[in-house]
Amino acid sequence: MVAILAATAAVTVPFQDCDPMGVTWHGNYLRYFEEARRALFTQIDYGYQQMQQSGYAWPIIDLKIRYPHPTTVDQQLLVKAELLEWQHRLRIRYQVHDADTGKRLVKGETVQVAVAIANGEMCLQSPAILQQKLAPWLD
Amino acid sequence: MVAILAATAAVTVPFQDCDPMGVTWHGNYLRYFEEARRALFTQIDYGYQQMQQSGYAWPIIDLKIRYPHPTTVDQQLLVKAELLEWQHRLRIRYQVHDADTGKRLVKGETVQVAVAIANGEMCLQSPAILQQKLAPWLD
Amino acid sequence: MVAILAATAAVTVPFQDCDPMGVTWHGNYLRYFEEARRALFTQIDYGYQQMQQSGYAWPIIDLKIRYPHPTTVDQQLLVKAELLEWQHRLRIRYQVHDADTGKRLVKGETVQVAVAIANGEMCLQSPAILQQKLAPWLD
Amino acid sequence: MVAILAATAAVTVPFQDCDPMGVTWHGNYLRYFEEARRALFTQIDYGYQQMQQSGYAWPIIDLKIRYPHPTTVDQQLLVKAELLEWQHRLRIRYQVHDADTGKRLVKGETVQVAVAIANGEMCLQSPAILQQKLAPWLD
Repeated sequence: MVAILAATAAVTVPFQDCDPMGVTWHGNYLRYFEEARRALFTQIDYGYQQMQQSGYAWPIIDLKIRYPHPTTVDQQLLVKAELLEWQHRLRIRYQVHDADTGKRLVKGETVQVAVAIANGEMCLQSPAILQQKLAPWLD
Repeated sequence: MVAILAATAAVTVPFQDCDPMGVTWHGNYLRYFEEARRALFTQIDYGYQQMQQSGYAWPIIDLKIRYPHPTTVDQQLLVKAELLEWQHRLRIRYQVHDADTGKRLVKGETVQVAVAIANGEMCLQSPAILQQKLAPWLD
Repeated sequence: MVAILAATAAVTVPFQDCDPMGVTWHGNYLRYFEEARRALFTQIDYGYQQMQQSGYAWPIIDLKIRYPHPTTVDQQLLVKAELLEWQHRLRIRYQVHDADTGKRLVKGETVQVAVAIANGEMCLQSPAILQQKLAPWLD
Repeated sequence: MVAILAATAAVTVPFQDCDPMGVTWHGNYLRYFEEARRALFTQIDYGYQQMQQSGYAWPIIDLKIRYPHPTTVDQQLLVKAELLEWQHRLRIRYQVHDADTGKRLVKGETVQVAVAIANGEMCLQSPAILQQKLAPWLD
């Protein structure tokens, strides 16, 4: 599937993200995905503040990760986020590669939907603001 | 699918687990799953120390979560873990319910495989120690 | 110094709170202090929701911790919080003991001040609501 | 006090580090201090792997933080770590500044001691390896 938009964040695995087995605890990759997602949304000028001002929150409602290879303290990672769908929900794919070797280590996917902050209701379609922000990438 | 073994952990959502939208950040549910998984393994006397002594680590290699309903600060949750498979990998299902209303809020699944600590190699079958620990539940 | 009010939370050290040296990462004790602080405020019916409804936030502005002894995965801890001052600021002392041996492992202190949510201004005195909540303990 | 060595890490406050009051939860600054400390130790080629290979762990035994100003999602911070003492213990001072305005927001201090990994014993003096690593900065 072709990505509409992509962004990459560089992450160096922090000491405290690794567990007693010496590898990154699985839940911490969601922090790294968050970094990549921030880079993605910054690119379309729709970061956390802009989302709030637009009246929408975008909670994650679905999540999948595969961890074929562990990572460890001080390892340098590149975390790529790619926007795959946006019309009814935001579907984003993540790939974590070792920055030195280029080897792919982890991959994942999240689904987010718009929720109107005013009444807490989930939107069945992504609000107009998202299409405006994405317009330059949609031709 | 019938669970071989089940355990439930009570979790009260900590303040710092909630994000600026006032709801539990999606990554923190993995902390709650970890609580339920600990309860599950404690039940068969195969907790973290016993795993280490047995020479195996059990990293998570696959993870899925659905978040149909948000949770918030001080909400009381019951997190149930159910062991669904064990012979080649550990497959565990999680369900998070509100402790008061009983409403199901979040569900998930993890897959773990045994890795021999001595050489870092993944086991194609679960080691004998697991079967011994599970024996009373396998009739 | 005599404590006005005290509460204790039981904490079992989670796997992911421990670092590659096999001990609890120093920052995670603040999670355990948070548990004890919640127990303390629950006792006077002034938990997070009551604070918000009263119009005040209580950010931590000062923090000290001493870590004479490490803790590790699955260790059972008792975390005691004691309220030492309340009139101009909340000063709380923490002591972490091993639940089995009773040995003291970690101690700390936090200072919080009231901030009016409406205008973000710091209060030079604790608001009246706090005195009301504490009244039964102040004779 | 003049610092022997200094390093600065750039940190953008992650969404999940902020709490329901919209500000960075106090415990998360320890993650930012960890970033600055990593930068400091990398500078003398004595990072986590080098520490382990040298046979020493360097747990934090004492910690102080002052939080005069809150920070929020996506705020860009500069976190400076300065080594103040090293002969018997590592004493490091931290200062968090807003990257745009230069305003100082948070400051702290940690104390670490060397512990021999082989026997778990605390060293009354910093081991020779540290002096070697620091030599170029000690004239």
